[in-house]
Amino acid sequence: MNKKKICIVVNNRANYARIKTVLKSVQNHKGLELKLVVGASALLDKFGELTKIIKKDRFKISAKLFSIIEGENLTTMAKSTGLGIIELSTIFENIKPDIVLTVADRFETMATAIAASYMNIPLAHTQGGEVTGSIDESVRHAITKLSHIHFPSSIKSYQNLIRLGEDRKNIFLVGCPAMDLAVGVKKDYKVLKNYHGVGSKINLKKPYVIVLQHPVTTEYEDAKYQIEQTLKAIIKIDMQTIWLWPNVDAGSDEISKTIRIYREKNLLKNVRFYKNFTPEDFLKIFINCRCIIGNSSSAIREGSFLGVPAINIGNRQNGREHGKNVIHCNYNQNQIYKSIKKQIKNERFKPQKIFGSGNAGKTIANILYKVKPNIKKKLNYD
Amino acid sequence: MNKKKICIVVNNRANYARIKTVLKSVQNHKGLELKLVVGASALLDKFGELTKIIKKDRFKISAKLFSIIEGENLTTMAKSTGLGIIELSTIFENIKPDIVLTVADRFETMATAIAASYMNIPLAHTQGGEVTGSIDESVRHAITKLSHIHFPSSIKSYQNLIRLGEDRKNIFLVGCPAMDLAVGVKKDYKVLKNYHGVGSKINLKKPYVIVLQHPVTTEYEDAKYQIEQTLKAIIKIDMQTIWLWPNVDAGSDEISKTIRIYREKNLLKNVRFYKNFTPEDFLKIFINCRCIIGNSSSAIREGSFLGVPAINIGNRQNGREHGKNVIHCNYNQNQIYKSIKKQIKNERFKPQKIFGSGNAGKTIANILYKVKPNIKKKLNYD
Amino acid sequence: MNKKKICIVVNNRANYARIKTVLKSVQNHKGLELKLVVGASALLDKFGELTKIIKKDRFKISAKLFSIIEGENLTTMAKSTGLGIIELSTIFENIKPDIVLTVADRFETMATAIAASYMNIPLAHTQGGEVTGSIDESVRHAITKLSHIHFPSSIKSYQNLIRLGEDRKNIFLVGCPAMDLAVGVKKDYKVLKNYHGVGSKINLKKPYVIVLQHPVTTEYEDAKYQIEQTLKAIIKIDMQTIWLWPNVDAGSDEISKTIRIYREKNLLKNVRFYKNFTPEDFLKIFINCRCIIGNSSSAIREGSFLGVPAINIGNRQNGREHGKNVIHCNYNQNQIYKSIKKQIKNERFKPQKIFGSGNAGKTIANILYKVKPNIKKKLNYD
Amino acid sequence: MNKKKICIVVNNRANYARIKTVLKSVQNHKGLELKLVVGASALLDKFGELTKIIKKDRFKISAKLFSIIEGENLTTMAKSTGLGIIELSTIFENIKPDIVLTVADRFETMATAIAASYMNIPLAHTQGGEVTGSIDESVRHAITKLSHIHFPSSIKSYQNLIRLGEDRKNIFLVGCPAMDLAVGVKKDYKVLKNYHGVGSKINLKKPYVIVLQHPVTTEYEDAKYQIEQTLKAIIKIDMQTIWLWPNVDAGSDEISKTIRIYREKNLLKNVRFYKNFTPEDFLKIFINCRCIIGNSSSAIREGSFLGVPAINIGNRQNGREHGKNVIHCNYNQNQIYKSIKKQIKNERFKPQKIFGSGNAGKTIANILYKVKPNIKKKLNYD
Repeated sequence: MNKKKICIVVNNRANYARIKTVLKSVQNHKGLELKLVVGASALLDKFGELTKIIKKDRFKISAKLFSIIEGENLTTMAKSTGLGIIELSTIFENIKPDIVLTVADRFETMATAIAASYMNIPLAHTQGGEVTGSIDESVRHAITKLSHIHFPSSIKSYQNLIRLGEDRKNIFLVGCPAMDLAVGVKKDYKVLKNYHGVGSKINLKKPYVIVLQHPVTTEYEDAKYQIEQTLKAIIKIDMQTIWLWPNVDAGSDEISKTIRIYREKNLLKNVRFYKNFTPEDFLKIFINCRCIIGNSSSAIREGSFLGVPAINIGNRQNGREHGKNVIHCNYNQNQIYKSIKKQIKNERFKPQKIFGSGNAGKTIANILYKVKPNIKKKLNYD
Repeated sequence: MNKKKICIVVNNRANYARIKTVLKSVQNHKGLELKLVVGASALLDKFGELTKIIKKDRFKISAKLFSIIEGENLTTMAKSTGLGIIELSTIFENIKPDIVLTVADRFETMATAIAASYMNIPLAHTQGGEVTGSIDESVRHAITKLSHIHFPSSIKSYQNLIRLGEDRKNIFLVGCPAMDLAVGVKKDYKVLKNYHGVGSKINLKKPYVIVLQHPVTTEYEDAKYQIEQTLKAIIKIDMQTIWLWPNVDAGSDEISKTIRIYREKNLLKNVRFYKNFTPEDFLKIFINCRCIIGNSSSAIREGSFLGVPAINIGNRQNGREHGKNVIHCNYNQNQIYKSIKKQIKNERFKPQKIFGSGNAGKTIANILYKVKPNIKKKLNYD
Repeated sequence: MNKKKICIVVNNRANYARIKTVLKSVQNHKGLELKLVVGASALLDKFGELTKIIKKDRFKISAKLFSIIEGENLTTMAKSTGLGIIELSTIFENIKPDIVLTVADRFETMATAIAASYMNIPLAHTQGGEVTGSIDESVRHAITKLSHIHFPSSIKSYQNLIRLGEDRKNIFLVGCPAMDLAVGVKKDYKVLKNYHGVGSKINLKKPYVIVLQHPVTTEYEDAKYQIEQTLKAIIKIDMQTIWLWPNVDAGSDEISKTIRIYREKNLLKNVRFYKNFTPEDFLKIFINCRCIIGNSSSAIREGSFLGVPAINIGNRQNGREHGKNVIHCNYNQNQIYKSIKKQIKNERFKPQKIFGSGNAGKTIANILYKVKPNIKKKLNYD
Repeated sequence: MNKKKICIVVNNRANYARIKTVLKSVQNHKGLELKLVVGASALLDKFGELTKIIKKDRFKISAKLFSIIEGENLTTMAKSTGLGIIELSTIFENIKPDIVLTVADRFETMATAIAASYMNIPLAHTQGGEVTGSIDESVRHAITKLSHIHFPSSIKSYQNLIRLGEDRKNIFLVGCPAMDLAVGVKKDYKVLKNYHGVGSKINLKKPYVIVLQHPVTTEYEDAKYQIEQTLKAIIKIDMQTIWLWPNVDAGSDEISKTIRIYREKNLLKNVRFYKNFTPEDFLKIFINCRCIIGNSSSAIREGSFLGVPAINIGNRQNGREHGKNVIHCNYNQNQIYKSIKKQIKNERFKPQKIFGSGNAGKTIANILYKVKPNIKKKLNYD
């Protein structure tokens, strides 16, 4: 009997953490064959060379595609998506998947969604129905309208999918696969020794914070100002800081440049910069930090599951469901500083299972095996 | 004072009829500057060389882009969209429009929507909220989720946009600009003399029907079977027939090939094939036909306004609002034959203004002038 | 032991005939693994769906890529080449060939040459050093300058490669693989029954001519005028005619359109049009024709080998080596008519082995196996 | 009277210095209209944001195109070229130039050459006929075979063009426009104050060397090793060093990464890194350095004109004509160290006018005005 070919496209380090347990479960499922396609920034060394991690995790890569056009501005973000569609179409033409699965809401994800849906290949989508800011908000809902199978991660997003006119029988509330990795995670003082990084040394036994702040593409012009507020708050707080370089988005270049100028002027005495961690290692570092600062969804998602104090800055996560571990603040160095002061005094928060309870990977694989998707869609009102 | 630059992308002959009065009104508006971009199948001779019509209508073309990849299958439909994004991004980068307007729901339209929205250029969209079949259904709603200004053409579609989570203050119920052209249209027996066409001669003074049947991309495999049902019904009905070649969609090639085989075998004695008419000439022919057959939205939209009997075949218009002029039937030669028999006995139906009353072009231009769009979107529930 | 991966890119029906025996010999060679990539017009039904023939010939296709952008003009010819490079780069990245082989001089061939040479993959090239007109002339020599292994088909072209500064030790005079197929070919009166075609019936037992005339891209504006000269001569000669539709080149659309108008007016009473034949079937038809007319290189290459009378029109083959079977004439209906009159009186010419003696396929496979190419090139003068 | 439209495509900072006086002369010529297109790495901030310099030099940019695909490896080098062709074709379609001029031999230049020559736009080319290593060698000669007008910069390269089969009447020995800028250049101790740079402070009154070392794409695997040899020699020589980041080529990323590791380890005490200088400022710094080290053609071209001691490392300039100012050495830290030791003792060499005498810009503009190019090419032997 022929196995069902499940093609999963990973474009980005964040994609990977959010889908890894699905990759594993599909790979291990007797009725499924995993076709892993890796593209966009997931291939780029400057974002942490995800392919090495993927190989260590023993996934076979079926096809690679370089699709990011240099510039890290709004124009190249659009063009990279166009190039992604062109290449993924050819790849799907040659692989002939039974189902394509796309992850969440980054701009490149749209390429996967268009290539698959236009080619009448049933499209499955994780994280539909959530609410945030930035272009991600538009991307996510547009992908929902192109998708045939939905795997929302929270009750609220499940309900939003129904309100968006999706058919209830194609929506499966499974939780977020990223939570699967967070089950039972323990701190580990030695985990940084496998990573290079630049900046001052970090001792994980002493208190530290994590910063992870991406540009907000719909506030592209303000990228420099926004990151400076965080930089200044971090300088003032003067605690050990693990800082992850931002994603490839319009504005990232501006953020990286601003950080480099601060580094060149020797202003960041207590900070070390990293490109990427494996999802598991990140969680080991995350669970032990005094607080996480920036606008990453990890702070909100895994943060609520692990109970780690978090400061969410600005509009990128605007409107996202979150737990009690999160304090919101504006792009304002004083506000950020005060919020950090407050959060680092906090111990862990009580874990909350807003985004699932840790078994999403297996559940998704099983549904993918059983589901008989219908590629004909219709707005499901009345 | 600088004029507001309104960039309108026309990809297709059908796009043009649906937006022509907007082009005219924007061009004539003192506060607006029209930037007309023509791409995709609108440039191709085999679909009727729209550029000649555009020039005769005295619109200046700001940029042209060839973006259709040959094959007329599902893969090339996706790839053409990717190529469109790449090229439109560069064109927008060089033109720097204040607002981009995209028309309806054809697959190439997505390219305009992605390029503009990713580049933080406010995106206006006509025909959002309507319901149909084919990939158009997915494309239309996905574009709604990327758009900042909505110009729905019917009350029902206005309501659907709100249910889809769009903000009421960005939705303007204006009617369809195609109706503007239909106001006061009169039959004209001489209009065919400007067009070449192939096949038998047509005398517009004698009874005739019109056929306009496109492939349904989500039923790609059945294109040949589906068109044969219509061909056989037309052969049997044996009345003068004006037949328009289908759009560039996955499946068109199959349809055209099937038609050519029937022609080669000399089976189509009473039929003449045309590539394209100007929107105005089409209406002059349309208003006088005994009935229109196929799956074009014109049959339903302009058809209800003009009261022309129409037979809608299959799923392409599945779920679309329509007036009393429409009979639905399946891909079945007998059913089609009987429906034609019935409709050609009918006189005109009473005109219905479901899709507007004929002043959409001016209204849209005025709104585009006044509107201050916000590029930050958020699902507008609760 | 790992086999050496030989990747051969076939973009066009003409490519296929010129490389088929190499494909066979590489496939059968114990030390080589064939990676056949099929793209561009080779995938398009309107040019005769080469993939069906390839499958019947039992070659496995490693990857397919749709890369022709519609328009058949100069702009889309360039763009299709760009798209070809993008896609072939990804395909080579995933296949990792040891050597890439590209065929002759059609515009799409450049895509193969650039992708391979830029990626440091040794590039082998057939038909280098020949002289013709059209853009092919520029393409051919440019590819020579990018190639590491040369397989010229004639002594004169071998010498030209040396004069062009290529290193003698990388040049292998092997003859043209198309001649391999022409060895021992016999006429066959029943061969047309496997092909559809449009137009009047052809009886191969009675006298007939063949027409094969492509646009000359560097005379793009004149495509219509040029083909009309031939059409008029053919009408006047009034003999059975087998006519092959032109290649996908800038100008083809104009040629096809002109032919269709003549057909529509019923002027071509004795002519039948075909999209494509298998290389072997073409030769069976070719060897028996009274003469071949147009500007195809087959008339000159296979024509000299088989001794078939040929009329070469215009500049496309301008400067190409040829045998005694060829009469040259201008784009002039009278000249063409008189030349046909003269040639159809001729019996077969004495076969000439200008382009090889029929063992090129095997020789090339053996050289590909043994050669240790150096990707560092240098103009080899002094 | 209509002016002749001369479209010049600048893809790179090095292109700009080599063509600036032509831009100026075309802009000032009464019969010519300059259409400046800027693309590829010329738009990227990380390579020194050439557009700012271009604006300060008061050239109007007709179109911009982002075309570099991230990765800085061999695959993306090929893909970027493909993307460049796609975009330049559309730009040429919209601009409709009378002549396109392309500069030298970088990989992106091929995109300009293919788009123009395929579109029957006469193509002019500077620096044809020169000999070097790397993929540039192949690119340069391939472009010659696509070009209709040649502007070689040296007698030897003029002769090579004839040997390559180009027609003598299309070859104009004009010298290199970069020399025009070098006429009368004087040192300037204050010039660095306009540039940011990272690393230790540089005092131009004290002795310093310049390093400019690009990857050799045909030795892609060795990029890290090669740059380390130079880094170690520079550390040992311990003199003030102005180091320019490498071009965007396959291997640049590896070079930059290696340099950053050395910087992070604090090994480069006397070195300051710059992204780019204006061509004029570079010459002011260049003329005063003790020697220039690496593999840039500037060391050889402008170096011979200015008489600056130069050390050329490895194969990138392999075979290039040069003056007495150049010492060649291998990728070997000791050899490099000893060569620097030797050259920094040298005073200026006697200037040599191998690559022209400083009036190329005007001469080229005048020829472009008068020339009536023929787009039909033919190998010009015997």
